[in-house]
Amino acid sequence: MKTKTLAELAEYVGGRVVGNPNLKISSAATLEGAENGEISFLANRKYLKLLRTTKAAAVVVQEELESPAALLVADDPYYAFTQIVVLLHGHRKHKKFGISAKASIAESAALGKDVHIHDFVTINENVRLGDRCILYPGVFIGPDAEVGDDCVLYPNVVIYDRCKVGNRVIIHANATVGEDGFGFATHDGVHHKIPHIGRAIIEDDVELGAACAIERGTLDDTVVSKGSKLGDAVVIGHGTRVGPHCLLVPQVGVAGSTTLGHHCVAAGQVGISGHLHIGNRVTMAAQSGVANNLADGAVVFGSPAFDANKAKRAYSLIKYLPETVKGVRKLAKRVSALENGR
Amino acid sequence: MKTKTLAELAEYVGGRVVGNPNLKISSAATLEGAENGEISFLANRKYLKLLRTTKAAAVVVQEELESPAALLVADDPYYAFTQIVVLLHGHRKHKKFGISAKASIAESAALGKDVHIHDFVTINENVRLGDRCILYPGVFIGPDAEVGDDCVLYPNVVIYDRCKVGNRVIIHANATVGEDGFGFATHDGVHHKIPHIGRAIIEDDVELGAACAIERGTLDDTVVSKGSKLGDAVVIGHGTRVGPHCLLVPQVGVAGSTTLGHHCVAAGQVGISGHLHIGNRVTMAAQSGVANNLADGAVVFGSPAFDANKAKRAYSLIKYLPETVKGVRKLAKRVSALENGR
Amino acid sequence: MKTKTLAELAEYVGGRVVGNPNLKISSAATLEGAENGEISFLANRKYLKLLRTTKAAAVVVQEELESPAALLVADDPYYAFTQIVVLLHGHRKHKKFGISAKASIAESAALGKDVHIHDFVTINENVRLGDRCILYPGVFIGPDAEVGDDCVLYPNVVIYDRCKVGNRVIIHANATVGEDGFGFATHDGVHHKIPHIGRAIIEDDVELGAACAIERGTLDDTVVSKGSKLGDAVVIGHGTRVGPHCLLVPQVGVAGSTTLGHHCVAAGQVGISGHLHIGNRVTMAAQSGVANNLADGAVVFGSPAFDANKAKRAYSLIKYLPETVKGVRKLAKRVSALENGR
Repeated sequence: MKTKTLAELAEYVGGRVVGNPNLKISSAATLEGAENGEISFLANRKYLKLLRTTKAAAVVVQEELESPAALLVADDPYYAFTQIVVLLHGHRKHKKFGISAKASIAESAALGKDVHIHDFVTINENVRLGDRCILYPGVFIGPDAEVGDDCVLYPNVVIYDRCKVGNRVIIHANATVGEDGFGFATHDGVHHKIPHIGRAIIEDDVELGAACAIERGTLDDTVVSKGSKLGDAVVIGHGTRVGPHCLLVPQVGVAGSTTLGHHCVAAGQVGISGHLHIGNRVTMAAQSGVANNLADGAVVFGSPAFDANKAKRAYSLIKYLPETVKGVRKLAKRVSALENGR
Repeated sequence: MKTKTLAELAEYVGGRVVGNPNLKISSAATLEGAENGEISFLANRKYLKLLRTTKAAAVVVQEELESPAALLVADDPYYAFTQIVVLLHGHRKHKKFGISAKASIAESAALGKDVHIHDFVTINENVRLGDRCILYPGVFIGPDAEVGDDCVLYPNVVIYDRCKVGNRVIIHANATVGEDGFGFATHDGVHHKIPHIGRAIIEDDVELGAACAIERGTLDDTVVSKGSKLGDAVVIGHGTRVGPHCLLVPQVGVAGSTTLGHHCVAAGQVGISGHLHIGNRVTMAAQSGVANNLADGAVVFGSPAFDANKAKRAYSLIKYLPETVKGVRKLAKRVSALENGR
Repeated sequence: MKTKTLAELAEYVGGRVVGNPNLKISSAATLEGAENGEISFLANRKYLKLLRTTKAAAVVVQEELESPAALLVADDPYYAFTQIVVLLHGHRKHKKFGISAKASIAESAALGKDVHIHDFVTINENVRLGDRCILYPGVFIGPDAEVGDDCVLYPNVVIYDRCKVGNRVIIHANATVGEDGFGFATHDGVHHKIPHIGRAIIEDDVELGAACAIERGTLDDTVVSKGSKLGDAVVIGHGTRVGPHCLLVPQVGVAGSTTLGHHCVAAGQVGISGHLHIGNRVTMAAQSGVANNLADGAVVFGSPAFDANKAKRAYSLIKYLPETVKGVRKLAKRVSALENGR
């Protein structure tokens, strides 16, 4: 941890100070948990009350608000705060290990400079590994696979043969990239496995959560495009293309041969069917089941999913179904009675 | 396996025998599968028919019922039966292995007494490991992490740096504790990773299923409190607190910064949104999507979830939507006709 | 890759050629991605347009259709195509490794002929491993477990003690077989673990996806029957029996003590409750929540699930709930007015 003055932090993030610029800040915390010398943030007005009672030394905010803390006003407070956390705390420091003698590395593998390969790692034939990669114990990189520069593969990550991982990719523990997709030809009641000759390609700056599974393509490649972030236990089907800068929250599943545009967001447990075209900047609310193509900018909810504004209203009315169903039946009788002149 | 008389078992669990107390019992089985010398249980009257045809020597029941088997009557038959299974069969016996020379253990790690550390285990710098722990192959314990006494970590369990695991914790294969949470500040369309300076804390007597993923906190800690049991593939978001003695069944997902009280039950595939307060003794039926705070004792179903009694009735009426929607339209015409004097 | 003439391929799959039988075919591709010398397939008339513009040399089809490519007409085009992909590309070739000196193999383990056991594999006491098995790094086979002939266990697959895996079984990376089920007896607010004395049994020709978790049975065995295929992150509860030749797509969850017949299909994220009887050839649409027994041949959708034809219509009408609920209330007023003679 470093210590900075509030003024230094404000300059670093392009914000301005309201209060004492000489406050010394050494770490970051929540509004509720912050203590002396700590900085916090307010990104949502829902937490205004906490701003008024926080013990933080300073708070990053979007506008001047009442608080016992000094303020650092920034246009995008969460981004400014993130920059400050990186400055003060840094990202995880990985042990500088060199190449362990207890790792199994094929002679034909080409390793970059300054790589750190832990014990019990397996690197197969013809693997190409970029510079400054960190491979934790139990990582497996299959034959002919490629991993770019500055990647971090946490323990027990498995990259199947021929798959390709870009630069600055982070893959969390127990995740799998490039397993065979769920592809079988059923004939006379028996399911015959189709060889998966496609690959899984993880582009630059992607992060994959723990226990993710990215199927390789049957014929085409499966692609997770640059800058996309996938949460824990996300499953991507064979031949699917996740566009750039998407956010797929934990437990999302996307079936095969579907295309997602850029900047799509799928909240927890969303399921997306196969062979669909999802446009750019599409937002899918939690647990939605997406069964149809979606246009750019669509915001959906429900299973099957439709326009979220309408869907949230409609789903909230399911609770009135008992009175509604009964109401229609009763009304039908009353109307019949009226029609028959009682 | 040990052999006990039915009288001994009854005494052990504080129950009473109806039938021959000298029956020798050596193992436990289901009502359908039981054979000579085996004991079974009836916890749900739905299976009364099986009680009448079972070949079990004895059955643990709550009250005297008709059966060809002898009866062991106990107030809480499933609990009594569980005690009997523990007595007769015991919990899994782990190989007494000592500390394998094929494990990688940092010099600065402090290991308790009588620990059993298998091959291919990695224990990093400054790890503190309690007494009598069993670490199966492929387990990884990150720098500065703590594990208490009498824990069992099955193969390929990963504990990230600085995380804390209590006493008598069981973690099943391929589960992950303390990976970075899904936290990004999006700025100009690019997702910037926020360092996760919080930890994941697993308290005493917790059990985590296979392929679970417990994110570490961004600023605060993520906590799974004492006595809670999580099924396979459960994902807990960053900064979330699961209270004591909760049951989270397989594939449940809880987003970040949510608090669950004690003795909550979430059935299969339940999703709980972030930043919520869920009270004590809350029950969430399978596949529910919890989007709002819930009071103590709430029982909910549906997505979005509401009172389960109402929700089960309401959801069961979705099948009448076609006739209901059409019914309203037809009635509207008939009422218009009446209003217009036909 | 091999090269075959189109005539040879047609003979191999029992189809007939329309066009030049002497075309040389060396690989398989999609209709969109295919180039010179490649063969593709059309299994769904939805993609007819692609058939007309494909650059494939030949296409496997069910009937004669307009295309610039030569045609290979076969009764079951996807099955024929699968056979051709196997012929041209083959299944994954595994490194012939023999038995690594870096694997840990108990003396009492019985290994078949021509097995290939990678580094960092653990094979425990009394394991029986069949002929020609391939065990990738990080695989763990617990004491007294059995694995049949011709199995492939990808990296970090964990088979718990006493479990049984049949012949020709494929298990993808980071999957777990035979962990303890989610079984606890709750007494005075504390959850007591019941020992799981059952096993998990994976029969012949099963394939399990990455990060799957198959719980062992409490008293009975959990069974995945012959020929069934499970996608990534599928969880099977304790004591459940998945019948032969089922397809359980990624993220499906089946709770405990449920029986599925043969040839059932569960699409993505389906959840099936415990203690149910699901018949043969039952199809469950994506995200369905199955809460009741289902008869042979049932096709269901929804949560709770019911007949899919009705359910798809009914769920599609949820969007009309606002006008319907409001409509009933308005009609009630208008009918009251009519009843009161205005």
